[in-house]
Amino acid sequence: MTESRAKFIVIEGLEGAGKSSAVALVTDFIEKHTGKAPVCTREPGGTPLAEKIRDLVKNAEPGDPLCDEAECLLFYAARAQLVANVIKPALADGRWVLGDRHNLSSIAYQGGGRGLMSLVSRLSDITLGDFKPDLTLYLDIDPILGLERAARRGALDRIEQQEIDFFQRARQTFLSEAAKDDSIKVIDASRPLTEVHAAIIATLSAAFSVN
Amino acid sequence: MTESRAKFIVIEGLEGAGKSSAVALVTDFIEKHTGKAPVCTREPGGTPLAEKIRDLVKNAEPGDPLCDEAECLLFYAARAQLVANVIKPALADGRWVLGDRHNLSSIAYQGGGRGLMSLVSRLSDITLGDFKPDLTLYLDIDPILGLERAARRGALDRIEQQEIDFFQRARQTFLSEAAKDDSIKVIDASRPLTEVHAAIIATLSAAFSVN
Repeated sequence: MTESRAKFIVIEGLEGAGKSSAVALVTDFIEKHTGKAPVCTREPGGTPLAEKIRDLVKNAEPGDPLCDEAECLLFYAARAQLVANVIKPALADGRWVLGDRHNLSSIAYQGGGRGLMSLVSRLSDITLGDFKPDLTLYLDIDPILGLERAARRGALDRIEQQEIDFFQRARQTFLSEAAKDDSIKVIDASRPLTEVHAAIIATLSAAFSVN
Repeated sequence: MTESRAKFIVIEGLEGAGKSSAVALVTDFIEKHTGKAPVCTREPGGTPLAEKIRDLVKNAEPGDPLCDEAECLLFYAARAQLVANVIKPALADGRWVLGDRHNLSSIAYQGGGRGLMSLVSRLSDITLGDFKPDLTLYLDIDPILGLERAARRGALDRIEQQEIDFFQRARQTFLSEAAKDDSIKVIDASRPLTEVHAAIIATLSAAFSVN
């Protein structure tokens, strides 16, 4: 097939949806498809400064709790830095980029989950303007199932009802964003891994005209 | 005189304008006027998290230069945190607050000086909404004179024309903001220190009805 401009692909999904194995699968796909490994990013983070910002967000001090505005501003500062110094230069250089989370996570978690949609969409607009992924694969899973999976691998201590409600709101936001944006593809991630992976490959092949 | 609600006073000015001695003077004034020392803040910074953000802005790594959007988002994240966790709680508690720089510095330096006014005013709106100082004392000085003063005390290594142009744009922005906002008072800081201090006291006394 003919090589066109490099693409920015993002994997999104709740805890336990299977993002990590999807990232590995899509990395392989891109390498076979383009002959070069993609630049892989994770958010928040992905540049030296953005990783420091990630630390600030994750390790707020008890005496100085992170306010909503500061948290969102920090997430978007990290994203601005990643887009300016990693994602856009890679794409300009003809390298595909594969993101483990991107803007849609802020929309789902802070916007939908925490009720800060107006703040998030204004910051998104300021920081990214028209820049967006060519394709987002949203791995959809019921949060109860996802959190059970994550708990089984020891990634969670305990699951509280409040958390379930938060993740339910985030899931609804992922789904409603997908319903209005054709570049976001919903993959049913509650199925066995082989089926999920087959669906991912089928989606990628259709999107990038691979037979 | 009668005690009314606590006030938020800010000192602004270019390098070499005499902010530090003005902060000391105004601290004394507030203490005499209200019987209590004000809560003093500096920006960027002023909370544990905001100070860490200040470090990130001041010590960007050469391989990961701070992009304009990230820089402004970080400044406003620090400001959001300071307002939420220090300034508003102090005012609610009846304590006066004295700021060494606040939002007007972002408007003057990033907005006017660096040409990012649209970004700054949108972030200002998101972060602060209607919150603003009761009184801002802008110490006005020609940047050439200010930078010479700062250089004499060893605060600057060398002065480049590019810097002068930047500070000239910042000064014009301070002055144009003052022209349209009656809560920003311009103090001519090119005069001898005793005259500048007399002008500051006169302005404070008029603003807070002290005889």
